[in-house]
Amino acid sequence: MGGFTNIAWNKGVLRLLDQRVLPQETRYLDFTDYHEVAQAIREMVTRGAPAIGATAAYGMALAALCTQATDPTTLRIELNQAAEVLRQSRPTAVNLFWAIERVLRRAANPALATVSAICEAVIAEANAIYEEDIKANKAMGFHALALVPDQAKILHHCNTGGLATVDYGTALGVIRTAHEAGKQVHAYLDETRPRLQGARLSAWELKRLNIPHTVIVDGASGHLMRTVGIDLCVVGCDRVAANGDTANKIGTYNLALAAHAHGVPFYVAAPTSTIDMSLPSGDAIPIEVRDPREVTHLGNFQITPDDTPVANFAFDVTPAKYITAIITEVGIAYPPFSDSLAELMARVQPPR
Amino acid sequence: MGGFTNIAWNKGVLRLLDQRVLPQETRYLDFTDYHEVAQAIREMVTRGAPAIGATAAYGMALAALCTQATDPTTLRIELNQAAEVLRQSRPTAVNLFWAIERVLRRAANPALATVSAICEAVIAEANAIYEEDIKANKAMGFHALALVPDQAKILHHCNTGGLATVDYGTALGVIRTAHEAGKQVHAYLDETRPRLQGARLSAWELKRLNIPHTVIVDGASGHLMRTVGIDLCVVGCDRVAANGDTANKIGTYNLALAAHAHGVPFYVAAPTSTIDMSLPSGDAIPIEVRDPREVTHLGNFQITPDDTPVANFAFDVTPAKYITAIITEVGIAYPPFSDSLAELMARVQPPR
Repeated sequence: MGGFTNIAWNKGVLRLLDQRVLPQETRYLDFTDYHEVAQAIREMVTRGAPAIGATAAYGMALAALCTQATDPTTLRIELNQAAEVLRQSRPTAVNLFWAIERVLRRAANPALATVSAICEAVIAEANAIYEEDIKANKAMGFHALALVPDQAKILHHCNTGGLATVDYGTALGVIRTAHEAGKQVHAYLDETRPRLQGARLSAWELKRLNIPHTVIVDGASGHLMRTVGIDLCVVGCDRVAANGDTANKIGTYNLALAAHAHGVPFYVAAPTSTIDMSLPSGDAIPIEVRDPREVTHLGNFQITPDDTPVANFAFDVTPAKYITAIITEVGIAYPPFSDSLAELMARVQPPR
Repeated sequence: MGGFTNIAWNKGVLRLLDQRVLPQETRYLDFTDYHEVAQAIREMVTRGAPAIGATAAYGMALAALCTQATDPTTLRIELNQAAEVLRQSRPTAVNLFWAIERVLRRAANPALATVSAICEAVIAEANAIYEEDIKANKAMGFHALALVPDQAKILHHCNTGGLATVDYGTALGVIRTAHEAGKQVHAYLDETRPRLQGARLSAWELKRLNIPHTVIVDGASGHLMRTVGIDLCVVGCDRVAANGDTANKIGTYNLALAAHAHGVPFYVAAPTSTIDMSLPSGDAIPIEVRDPREVTHLGNFQITPDDTPVANFAFDVTPAKYITAIITEVGIAYPPFSDSLAELMARVQPPR
């Protein structure tokens, strides 16, 4: 829909748009081996919680297709092994675990009596995750329309568009829906160090969609609120705990604090696949620490002196008290989130 | 003192360490023409409010030395012209204007009856600014010792060391003094987009000084306070208004908001040359907007899509209410700053 295909499944081949080289280069990579899919997730060929979920589901489909197993039990053992490999790729976004679990549950159905029946079911489940993600994104945009005033100046962090999802986007989808509804919105994009997903990917998507936008460094958000004025912030998420605490790309928490200080509404766009009701609070969300090189280098250009120590937290947790509302595909949750999220999750079919 | 000379004046030649190519390259540039000095300030060959002040003072010295004037009146006209050129180089740091003003006032002394007497006085004033800056930095470090606990984890923004001053540093000087006093401090360095002064310059200085440090992206400061724990923040400044509102490198305000949310003391190291008692509040401080290319490119590497719109504010203003104390060379100011800064400024000799 954004004029590009982020994730595609075609006759047993998974094709991913390589986001590491955007916007300079549009390169697609094909996968037929789930080990390579796990590696691609780890190296951020694709990224964004919903995109990781769908990609991992197709990784499971590749495991099923490549099987040498001649009986269901052996195939199910292999699928559990593939699940374990894929789970090791990245720790923070819960969609990865959620999607793998959905596929495993489908494959475990005792009614599936043959290897080919299990294979078909695994592929069908991956396709279902894929299709549901697009629908969820559009539904979030629709629910959020009432939250976005005409002429809104909207501050956004990282990338949450068609590149972070199967298609359309979560937080950028909210901006896109408002734009398509005729509201004259302007998006301010945190560049989002260290990997610059805002400057590279969100700017690329919004340019293609003709949505007015301006890139800023992450440190400028408070200044922008103080001087230019921002009407709302909207961000995606990698995992939302049952109390509303939200893990998202590093820098989200600082943005939430700036919004709070200025009375700017701070919204999280969270498909229910990202909500982890098993965790009581954000303190239990594992935070990935990535290669220092993401901070010390840009491409082959070395920024810091040799051997400079770096702490490269990939995510942070924004406590629920700084979040105005959580936008899901089944409705909008307001504080207290412990109640509202539980109520929304009860509406999700199939139940999670 | 840090094993390098940032600014040197030798027989009519101004030598500057070219900070644009650090830490990869140590390159010195020599100047004999004040127009080129203004250009060097604009292009950030040197930067940091106190360094800009001293550099501009020597720019005035070059104007005096290069004069063809044969009478004091003509020379004073030329000096005023040079002052105007130098004032246009950068708008936010008040030290630039303060240093130029000091030189002009000295040159205007009617007791100076010859061209050569004015020349000597101008050079003497530039040298005085140079020497006073080093003394002020050391005095700030000394005053601040009581504010820095042993084992302190200190968060710092931008570069405020020997590279931002004549020598020693303001906020990094505070960290350095604590380190030299035997306190086991650890500095966390905001990388400071877009020009990465923290990652490039502060890391370079602290490595030379053997002060333990870790570089983080600017968006990680809140996460660090929430998880690792930070004992205090200390930053420099480009201009402090009479009420304590402080203009400093973009991202300072976000850091102050994060510190406020966590009850972390937030200190500004401000030589009195940076305090502008003529401005009632930070709203009157001009904020420089710089070339979008600083955000869209790193060196020759293009980050964003072509023609991506950028808002590149070089500075922001942190309201006084988020500042715990302002450290000057004549003592520490606490809120209410309108009173405490006025009291401190009255102690400064010569009166400003």
